[in-house]
Amino acid sequence: MSPKSRGELGGDRVPGRRAVRELLIAGRRPVKTVWIARGRDASPILDEIAELAAAVGTTVKIADEERVRAEAHTDSPQGVVAVAAPVEPASLDDLAGAPDAFLVLLDGVTDPRNLGAILRVAETAGATGAVLPRHRSALLTPSAVKAAAGAVEHLPIALVAGVPAALEQLGRAGVWSVGLDATGSESVYELAVADQRVALVLGAEGRGLSRLARERCDVLASIPMHGHVESLNVSAAAAVACFEVSRRRAQ
Amino acid sequence: MSPKSRGELGGDRVPGRRAVRELLIAGRRPVKTVWIARGRDASPILDEIAELAAAVGTTVKIADEERVRAEAHTDSPQGVVAVAAPVEPASLDDLAGAPDAFLVLLDGVTDPRNLGAILRVAETAGATGAVLPRHRSALLTPSAVKAAAGAVEHLPIALVAGVPAALEQLGRAGVWSVGLDATGSESVYELAVADQRVALVLGAEGRGLSRLARERCDVLASIPMHGHVESLNVSAAAAVACFEVSRRRAQ
Repeated sequence: MSPKSRGELGGDRVPGRRAVRELLIAGRRPVKTVWIARGRDASPILDEIAELAAAVGTTVKIADEERVRAEAHTDSPQGVVAVAAPVEPASLDDLAGAPDAFLVLLDGVTDPRNLGAILRVAETAGATGAVLPRHRSALLTPSAVKAAAGAVEHLPIALVAGVPAALEQLGRAGVWSVGLDATGSESVYELAVADQRVALVLGAEGRGLSRLARERCDVLASIPMHGHVESLNVSAAAAVACFEVSRRRAQ
Repeated sequence: MSPKSRGELGGDRVPGRRAVRELLIAGRRPVKTVWIARGRDASPILDEIAELAAAVGTTVKIADEERVRAEAHTDSPQGVVAVAAPVEPASLDDLAGAPDAFLVLLDGVTDPRNLGAILRVAETAGATGAVLPRHRSALLTPSAVKAAAGAVEHLPIALVAGVPAALEQLGRAGVWSVGLDATGSESVYELAVADQRVALVLGAEGRGLSRLARERCDVLASIPMHGHVESLNVSAAAAVACFEVSRRRAQ
């Protein structure tokens, strides 16, 4: 890890009950302090968090709601936030080289809640890594970390300078890239490469995939739509596509 | 429609570009006013909205951002909000009687953004209706309507007094009820009833299905999970389950 990239992904503020609990259970990174709001109704998960923190020697500070919210750098931290070492990025080489690679590459998703929701979906579907561009993308802000509900403790995340170059690198490593695109000619349910080493490529909210990313993908796939509303939110599309790959790989 | 139930669902404030555009295109309910924020960057969709509104004789008011946000009753309306007649509830009888019924029943989803996201997912997956309990459930608040991105214009929504009684009514009408539950013994990918008349039943954030709802469902199904994070957000679970039913029905 070069000093330059240290902390680049963010993730040092961890708000939300699920996210803090998973941070402490996973034990992958140092946790400096856990702030818990005073005067909350009794909550088994807050009690569990306090016990987990004590067990690993992390300082627990009880404070009023306002202070906890301020430390969380986000609204509605559900009465708890942890301050931890940032999440260290993984290397794209390592992710691409995994024999069972199942990656999710985000081409400019800018809403932190969408990013967090996608990381959660990817992790639970069994993805082996995520890839984010360093610029013009949401990174691990407090809102993203909260929405990820602990997924950032387990899912390796690589940062790349550009999506097209990353797709090229994945191709050289033998990973098939599947761009999700409303114009895609292949149905996501009939992906020939779903059970092979694969990267799902998801575009930005609204705009979708960039032209260059679209051109570099091996396959463009679409989710068959049956209503009047013309598109899915990017995190819903991620859920459908990730679990479809998951279903196929389990067969 | 009895006077008592008029407006009960809400939906009279429609913020957000996709939601307003779909409201005007669908033309299912009277639209009183469309507010558009002045001084926004040129936007094809805002121009289209202004044209659509003019074409149906709806008043367009140009105002500053602050005013538009105040009319929207929500943050970030994306520079546009419509004031319309509320969404009229559908009857459960009608939804249950449809020969191709594919329903989504929400057992106490309280976050409006989750509700909106689920309605959008259901509509695009080809669901024929949604069912919400009148109490202890999010209804069509501005945030829900925005997240639904136009789905509320097309997807009929029934309000019921209680979920267990609604499940009983669906059963009598010959609609299979499938509760999504982490403990469900059947995989959502192997649902015997996916291509029949079916209602997916989704529980509240965190708590999941209520005990009574769980007991009344014909089948309890789970989404096979392959990571460390133990659960999906309810709207992600809805996306996976709705599109799995959609995939099976298209076969």
